[in-house]
Amino acid sequence: MKVLLKGLWPSPYCLTACPSLSETSPLSSRSPLGEHLSDAFAQVNPMKKVPAMKDGGFTLCESVAILLYLAHKYKVPDHWYPQDLQARARVDEYLAWQHTTLRRSCLRTLWHKVMFPVFLGEQIRPEMLAATLADLDVNVQVLEDQFLQDKDFLVGPHISLADVVAITELMHPVGGGCPVFEGRPRLAAWYRRVEAAVGKDLFLEAHEVILKVRDCPPADPVIKQKLMPRVLTMIQ
Amino acid sequence: MKVLLKGLWPSPYCLTACPSLSETSPLSSRSPLGEHLSDAFAQVNPMKKVPAMKDGGFTLCESVAILLYLAHKYKVPDHWYPQDLQARARVDEYLAWQHTTLRRSCLRTLWHKVMFPVFLGEQIRPEMLAATLADLDVNVQVLEDQFLQDKDFLVGPHISLADVVAITELMHPVGGGCPVFEGRPRLAAWYRRVEAAVGKDLFLEAHEVILKVRDCPPADPVIKQKLMPRVLTMIQ
Repeated sequence: MKVLLKGLWPSPYCLTACPSLSETSPLSSRSPLGEHLSDAFAQVNPMKKVPAMKDGGFTLCESVAILLYLAHKYKVPDHWYPQDLQARARVDEYLAWQHTTLRRSCLRTLWHKVMFPVFLGEQIRPEMLAATLADLDVNVQVLEDQFLQDKDFLVGPHISLADVVAITELMHPVGGGCPVFEGRPRLAAWYRRVEAAVGKDLFLEAHEVILKVRDCPPADPVIKQKLMPRVLTMIQ
Repeated sequence: MKVLLKGLWPSPYCLTACPSLSETSPLSSRSPLGEHLSDAFAQVNPMKKVPAMKDGGFTLCESVAILLYLAHKYKVPDHWYPQDLQARARVDEYLAWQHTTLRRSCLRTLWHKVMFPVFLGEQIRPEMLAATLADLDVNVQVLEDQFLQDKDFLVGPHISLADVVAITELMHPVGGGCPVFEGRPRLAAWYRRVEAAVGKDLFLEAHEVILKVRDCPPADPVIKQKLMPRVLTMIQ
């Protein structure tokens, strides 16, 4: 379990990366902000994005691909990524859906509410923030109504990779101060089930960075300069 | 092969959908534009997006999930989605990467160049179109340099789901009049290998709609009204 959850941590838009990659591990150390933009990290992921994984001489990017690799390699219990054709398809359906919808909304919410104004010192137009929050609301509702429905977890009675990916995304707006579970008792109950299935300590450890993101100091000017071209599309 | 390629056709942003879904098939009929917005189609995909698949009583959305389902169900030759841990991870890595990068660029290019001005009669600001084309250029270069490199196909010597998904995305800017393969001999050679592996007739059949998209008549006002809220974010 631990290796799976850490496969998402830091998430693709968290600004940390691991400098020494000599073992089988997703990147999870608390290295300096922006280190994923270094030339050394480019040897692991030429696109300079986290998470990335190095397993011996094999490097792999993209959190979903890393999770699937870890699930296959370590032969995790079936419920994480079921052998059953239809149950597996439901996990795949969620993992594909979230990229351009919930993940995008959660990422933009965190950046618009915290990372731009606090970390980068850049203002966001109020109407843009409002549109981002409205978009988040729509996608969280789809998560609850279309994916979770009345089930215990997103694809059935047991936790799967879909739940881990979903909760990790939702913790971004939570870290940004958005009460996404308020007024959504079904989703809030699911949150508690996921937290319990993962284990509260591990859950908190995995989200420690994101839950403290509002306390991060302003970016170093050099880091800011490196980051801006990559994130400008989010405030345009 | 045919069932795999048709799993992507019509693609998620092509405006067709199948009204009668009584057999195991991805949606692929040439039904009226905008039919995926109907209440009948919502019974297959409540999010009213294509493609969607109905296999008996099992419905599934998201092109990547549909392709994986079909590959598993029909036990397609190994090269499409290899059993080998690392080779499979490479396919998964591409399938995860493309959602927010190449797919987004290709979608926006088609909409900004054709669908908005021709189909919906809406103008796009020149600087927005320029930004979209620049973004497309970056992502196509990543496809060539980071994924294809000097291999015959994206993950090795044989065609895989990654190639099918990639070529289908690239045919959108091609349909929109963007010569994405010009000046990129490695990518152009890959295109010819994919076309040959698929079979030229099937390749053309699969992309018939998108290659004629510039000839589509302007949208019916009712369809336009239904579509606009869903696509406005692309011109904002």
